[in-house]
Amino acid sequence: MILSRQDLQEARDRISPYIFMTPVIQSDFFNELIGGEIFFKCENLQRIGSFKVRGAVNAVLQLSAKKKEKGIATHSSGNHAQAIAFAAKLFGLKAFIVMPENSSAVKLDRVRELGGEVILCKATLESRETVLKEIAERTGAVFIPPFDHPDIICGQASAAIEFLEAVPGMHILMAPVGGGGLLSGTALAVKYFSPSTKVWGTEPELADDASRGLHSGRIEENDPTKITIADGLRTTLGRITFPIIRENVEEILTVSEEEIKNAMALTWNRLHIIIEPSSAVPVAALIKYKERFAGKKTGIIFSGGNINAA
Amino acid sequence: MILSRQDLQEARDRISPYIFMTPVIQSDFFNELIGGEIFFKCENLQRIGSFKVRGAVNAVLQLSAKKKEKGIATHSSGNHAQAIAFAAKLFGLKAFIVMPENSSAVKLDRVRELGGEVILCKATLESRETVLKEIAERTGAVFIPPFDHPDIICGQASAAIEFLEAVPGMHILMAPVGGGGLLSGTALAVKYFSPSTKVWGTEPELADDASRGLHSGRIEENDPTKITIADGLRTTLGRITFPIIRENVEEILTVSEEEIKNAMALTWNRLHIIIEPSSAVPVAALIKYKERFAGKKTGIIFSGGNINAA
Repeated sequence: MILSRQDLQEARDRISPYIFMTPVIQSDFFNELIGGEIFFKCENLQRIGSFKVRGAVNAVLQLSAKKKEKGIATHSSGNHAQAIAFAAKLFGLKAFIVMPENSSAVKLDRVRELGGEVILCKATLESRETVLKEIAERTGAVFIPPFDHPDIICGQASAAIEFLEAVPGMHILMAPVGGGGLLSGTALAVKYFSPSTKVWGTEPELADDASRGLHSGRIEENDPTKITIADGLRTTLGRITFPIIRENVEEILTVSEEEIKNAMALTWNRLHIIIEPSSAVPVAALIKYKERFAGKKTGIIFSGGNINAA
Repeated sequence: MILSRQDLQEARDRISPYIFMTPVIQSDFFNELIGGEIFFKCENLQRIGSFKVRGAVNAVLQLSAKKKEKGIATHSSGNHAQAIAFAAKLFGLKAFIVMPENSSAVKLDRVRELGGEVILCKATLESRETVLKEIAERTGAVFIPPFDHPDIICGQASAAIEFLEAVPGMHILMAPVGGGGLLSGTALAVKYFSPSTKVWGTEPELADDASRGLHSGRIEENDPTKITIADGLRTTLGRITFPIIRENVEEILTVSEEEIKNAMALTWNRLHIIIEPSSAVPVAALIKYKERFAGKKTGIIFSGGNINAA
């Protein structure tokens, strides 16, 4: 599937009135630690606390009036669930959200608070898909997938477009990779808007399917018995996101659970913002491979901040 | 002492190259809770994690080369200490910081990390001042006071000037008040740059000297046996800050310790940023008196984020 510069530009223009222009921040601590210039795009300060609202709003805005009538539905372990509930609330639609029963309490609460109807399922992709299919059949709601859809990818790309405008001339742009919606959108944004920037994905060692997939040339699975703290990144790449990433992402850096936890604590204490574990993954990569970032201008996209911190 | 519009403007221009332009953020949660528009100016995302760097940099930039030679000195329980150490590092000066022995470990560490020489004293204003005097005599360093100085006040005013530019037409602007450097600067910025905006101070019930002083017409003391969690606000107003506040601040709202803790937790979880207890005080006031903010455009200055969160 070919997504064009115009597709990305139109998505960005379409959703801009409905999302926050999130800030880009810097930190003397990280600049000195790395010996380079590091910039952080704070999607944790986005509406619903995650970039996921970008894709969800874009997808809903592409639906016909007739399709919207029956509402929208999805399955998600976290931020996409909130994003769909938020987008539905914004446009006055019904939202049906299939969530695994092991979802964090705060994520379940937030979806309900936004007016989304939560339907619990087992914590397997199979259960999610079966339950979602039942819901869609019963209600007629349109399924908006969490990442493997052109409207989602184009929406997520807008974070990187804003970032590249705010910080021209970045050498490296890093984002976490789970299903690959954010990373594929970021890679396309760089391809069209700042082709000299390199895009690196980052993921937990315990869910390193993207890293293995870049080497093997096919979509890889994760070991379901290995549970990373970075709950947003447990998913594997999709049929649309994988080829975009294979073609446009230079490499995938992986980090350990300990490195993720340390990076999260350091970010909280030094940047004075709350990021969730998935967002700490690129910070962990920055620290682990710091000599690769020395003297460079590096951007990191913080994907979200939904964790019970207090 | 009369500080003019030009004094404030010059200070802002003088320090701008050395500080971060901190973001202003919004939150659907707070907007809905209050039924108004709430904007947050994030000085917790400022260099050294606090607005205090503004006044410190401004004060240092006003010193003659000869005065700077011997270094700078101050006494502070927290963020001003880091601000002076930071300003000294920025301009290649020595910094001598007298800090009470009950200062938080993280605040002591950060001053040392910035290259400041820490001299511990007892936790009384008398001990602070005696030890500082000894240091100044021994080293010849220039004392830069934490709040009661025109250069400090003019520097701190720049946060509100930026805020008023970013969000025109605010009805109410709130800041915490301890010694009154931030609040007096904020009040002057509003007087000169947005006179229709009302300025309200906020402070803990356990350190409500500003509230009592506004009624009695004189500088009031705090009960030293009552220790608020908002450690940046335990100080009383100064001889320069008090009259500016009396003349330009409409009122001071006070909040309980429980209200401060709840507001801090809510801010962490809902705004996804780390604020220290002093910054939670205006949020607590917002929630406690929410009907006063309904339908209004309100700004809150987050003074800092230096707390060990992780």
